[in-house]
Amino acid sequence: MVFKKITLIGTSDESFDAAVDDAVERAEDSLDNLYWVEVENLGVELASVEHREYQAEVEVAFQLE
Amino acid sequence: MVFKKITLIGTSDESFDAAVDDAVERAEDSLDNLYWVEVENLGVELASVEHREYQAEVEVAFQLE
Amino acid sequence: MVFKKITLIGTSDESFDAAVDDAVERAEDSLDNLYWVEVENLGVELASVEHREYQAEVEVAFQLE
Amino acid sequence: MVFKKITLIGTSDESFDAAVDDAVERAEDSLDNLYWVEVENLGVELASVEHREYQAEVEVAFQLE
Amino acid sequence: MVFKKITLIGTSDESFDAAVDDAVERAEDSLDNLYWVEVENLGVELASVEHREYQAEVEVAFQLE
Amino acid sequence: MVFKKITLIGTSDESFDAAVDDAVERAEDSLDNLYWVEVENLGVELASVEHREYQAEVEVAFQLE
Amino acid sequence: MVFKKITLIGTSDESFDAAVDDAVERAEDSLDNLYWVEVENLGVELASVEHREYQAEVEVAFQLE
Amino acid sequence: MVFKKITLIGTSDESFDAAVDDAVERAEDSLDNLYWVEVENLGVELASVEHREYQAEVEVAFQLE
Amino acid sequence: MVFKKITLIGTSDESFDAAVDDAVERAEDSLDNLYWVEVENLGVELASVEHREYQAEVEVAFQLE
Amino acid sequence: MVFKKITLIGTSDESFDAAVDDAVERAEDSLDNLYWVEVENLGVELASVEHREYQAEVEVAFQLE
Amino acid sequence: MVFKKITLIGTSDESFDAAVDDAVERAEDSLDNLYWVEVENLGVELASVEHREYQAEVEVAFQLE
Amino acid sequence: MVFKKITLIGTSDESFDAAVDDAVERAEDSLDNLYWVEVENLGVELASVEHREYQAEVEVAFQLE
Repeated sequence: MVFKKITLIGTSDESFDAAVDDAVERAEDSLDNLYWVEVENLGVELASVEHREYQAEVEVAFQLE
Repeated sequence: MVFKKITLIGTSDESFDAAVDDAVERAEDSLDNLYWVEVENLGVELASVEHREYQAEVEVAFQLE
Repeated sequence: MVFKKITLIGTSDESFDAAVDDAVERAEDSLDNLYWVEVENLGVELASVEHREYQAEVEVAFQLE
Repeated sequence: MVFKKITLIGTSDESFDAAVDDAVERAEDSLDNLYWVEVENLGVELASVEHREYQAEVEVAFQLE
Repeated sequence: MVFKKITLIGTSDESFDAAVDDAVERAEDSLDNLYWVEVENLGVELASVEHREYQAEVEVAFQLE
Repeated sequence: MVFKKITLIGTSDESFDAAVDDAVERAEDSLDNLYWVEVENLGVELASVEHREYQAEVEVAFQLE
Repeated sequence: MVFKKITLIGTSDESFDAAVDDAVERAEDSLDNLYWVEVENLGVELASVEHREYQAEVEVAFQLE
Repeated sequence: MVFKKITLIGTSDESFDAAVDDAVERAEDSLDNLYWVEVENLGVELASVEHREYQAEVEVAFQLE
Repeated sequence: MVFKKITLIGTSDESFDAAVDDAVERAEDSLDNLYWVEVENLGVELASVEHREYQAEVEVAFQLE
Repeated sequence: MVFKKITLIGTSDESFDAAVDDAVERAEDSLDNLYWVEVENLGVELASVEHREYQAEVEVAFQLE
Repeated sequence: MVFKKITLIGTSDESFDAAVDDAVERAEDSLDNLYWVEVENLGVELASVEHREYQAEVEVAFQLE
Repeated sequence: MVFKKITLIGTSDESFDAAVDDAVERAEDSLDNLYWVEVENLGVELASVEHREYQAEVEVAFQLE
C-alpha cells in the first residue's frame, strides 16, 4: 500500500475552514481513496481581490491503486 | 512557579475552532490552573470516519502546584 | 517596488478567523496598500482573561511608497 | 535538465527499510530516470491495522524528459 | 474524541527498528487505545554503553477515554 | 531501557540560569533517574508580573522503570 | 479557485538565476495559469558533471481549472 | 548598543541580486547605521505582473541611536 | 486588542542575561504596554569589538492603543 | 571539557542501519573519545550507482583533549 | 564510501553567485573529490566593509579516502 | 575572504554563559581570526556527572588564511 501526497491551496471569501474545505472538495472531484489532509499554511490575499480572500495550503494524502 | 505543557489532539466534525475547544475542554476537565494553549498542527481525517473530522493538535500549559 | 512586513497579534473571544480579521483591520486603520497576510501562530489565552481569548499572530505585507 | 519531486508514503509490516523500498518500487513502476530519494518522515500506524504498519514518507526525484 | 501524545525514547543494541519497537512496547504496557507513532529523532549513544546503543525518540498518540 | 520526556517551564526573577534550575528542581522533586535537559525556549514575561520574570521552557528526560 | 503546487529542480551551468528560470520555463511549457514560484533550496552539483551545475529547487503554483 | 531588524521585500525584473539590492537601497534611503542583511526568502511573481518579478525578502539590521 | 512585535538585538560585554535586559530596557524607553519577550537567537561578536560582545536577538510584544 | 561535532555521510547497499554504522566506523578509525551520534538525514541514491545506495547523514560528537 | 561535510562562508563584492563560487574555489584548493554544495544562508555585510559584501554560507560535501 | 564554521560544545558546572565561554576559549587556543559565535543549543547533563553540567553547543566562525 502506497500513498501519494499533493499540495493544494483552497480559497474562500468566508473563512479558513471554508478554504480548507474548498481544497478538499477539489481533491475529491478528481481523486479516490483520500485518507487525510495536513494544513501547511494559512494566509489572506488582500491586493488582487475585491474583499479578503482566505487561503489554506494543504497536503492531501490518497492511496495509490 | 513552574508550568507543565502537555500535547492533546481535539476533534470535531464542525470546524477547527471546535476541535481546539474540544481539546481545551478535555484539559479543563482534569487540570486546574490552565494558562495558555498553542496550536501546533491542523488536519482533517477522511478515511476512517464517516464525514470529515477536523483535528487540532495543541499544547496546553498549566501551573504545577 | 518594495514591500514591508510587520507582525501583529489579533485577538477575539469568538474564533481564530475573527482574531485574524482583528489584526487585518488594525493594519487597515493605519496603513495603505496592504497586499497579503501570513498566519504565523494560533493560540488561546486562558489565564489572564475572563473567557477564552483566541489569538492569531500574523505578518502583514504592504507596499512602501 | 529539469527534475521533478513527488511525495510518496510507503508501508511495510516488517521494517522502515522495507517501507522506503515500497515507495521506491512504486515509483520505479511508473517513472523513468529516478535520481534520488529523501526520507521526510518515519511513523508507525497502530489503530487501523492488525499489526504494526511501518510508514516512510519520501520525496522521489526524477528527471523530466 | 481527544488524543494525547507523549514522548518516549526507546533503545536497542541491534537496530533503529528495534529501538522504535522498544518504545512502542513500553507504551502498550501502560496505555490502551494506541493510534499512531511519529519518529522524531534517531541517534546512537557511544560513550556510556559497552557497545552501540541505537536510540529512537518517538511521539506516541493514544485516545483518552 | 526506555526514557520519557516531559516539558516544563521554569521561572525566576533573577536570570535564565535560575529559570532552568527552577524547572530541573521541580522535576527532581517528583521524578527519579533524571538524565538530561534540553532548553527549548527562553522568554521574559513583563505584563502580568511586578518585575521581569525570566522563563525557560525545557524538556526533561528520565528513565522509566 | 484552487491552486496546486509542484516541486521542480532547474539546472544551469551559468547561475542560480538561470537555474530558477530553467524550472519556470519548463513549467510554462506544460502548465497554464502559473501564479508564483517559491525558491526552496539552492545547491551546486560538482561530482557527476563536467563543470559546476547550479541547481534551484522551486515550488511552482498554478491555478486549477 | 541596540540593533533593530525590519523585514523588507525588494523586487526586480532582472535578478535576485537586484531584488536584494532594491531592498537594501530602500533601507539606506530612510535609515542610518545599517549593519547587515539576512536573506529570508526568494520567489518569483508571475500572475500579476507583465514579466517575471524576482522578489527577495530580507531582514535589515541597523543600530538604534 | 491588538499586539505588535518588533525585533531588537541587545548587547553586553558581561552576559546573555544582560544582553536581553539591554534590549528590554531600550524597548521600555520608547514603548508603553510591553507584554512579553521571546529570545530568538544568542551569539557572541568577537572580530569588531575589543572583548567578547554577548548579543541577544529578541522579539518584544506590546499592546497597540 | 569541550566536544566537537563533525558531519559525515555513511553509505550502504543494504540498509539505513548499515549506512549509519558505516559513518560511525569511519569516525572510530580516526577519532578517539566518541560520545554520541545524531542522525540528520536519510536518503537513497539511485542515479549514479548500480543498485540502491542507502545514505545516512550523521553528526558525530567527540571529546577534544 | 563515506562523505564529510564542512561549512564555509564565501564573500564577494559582486554577487551571491560569486560568493558561492568563492567558497567552492577555496574548497577545491585544499580538498579532492568534492561532490556537491548546499547553500545554507545568504546575507550582505554593510557595516565593516567599504561597499556591500555579499556572503554565502554553504556546506561542501567531499568523499573521504 | 572565506570563513569556516566549526561546531563545539562547551561545558560548565556554573552557568550557560560559562559553557559558551568554555567553547570560545577552546577555539581561541587553536584558531586565529575568530569572528563570531552562534549559540545553537543549550542543555544540562544530569546522569553521568556528579552535579549539573551546563552545556552550550555553538558554531564558531573564523577567517581562513
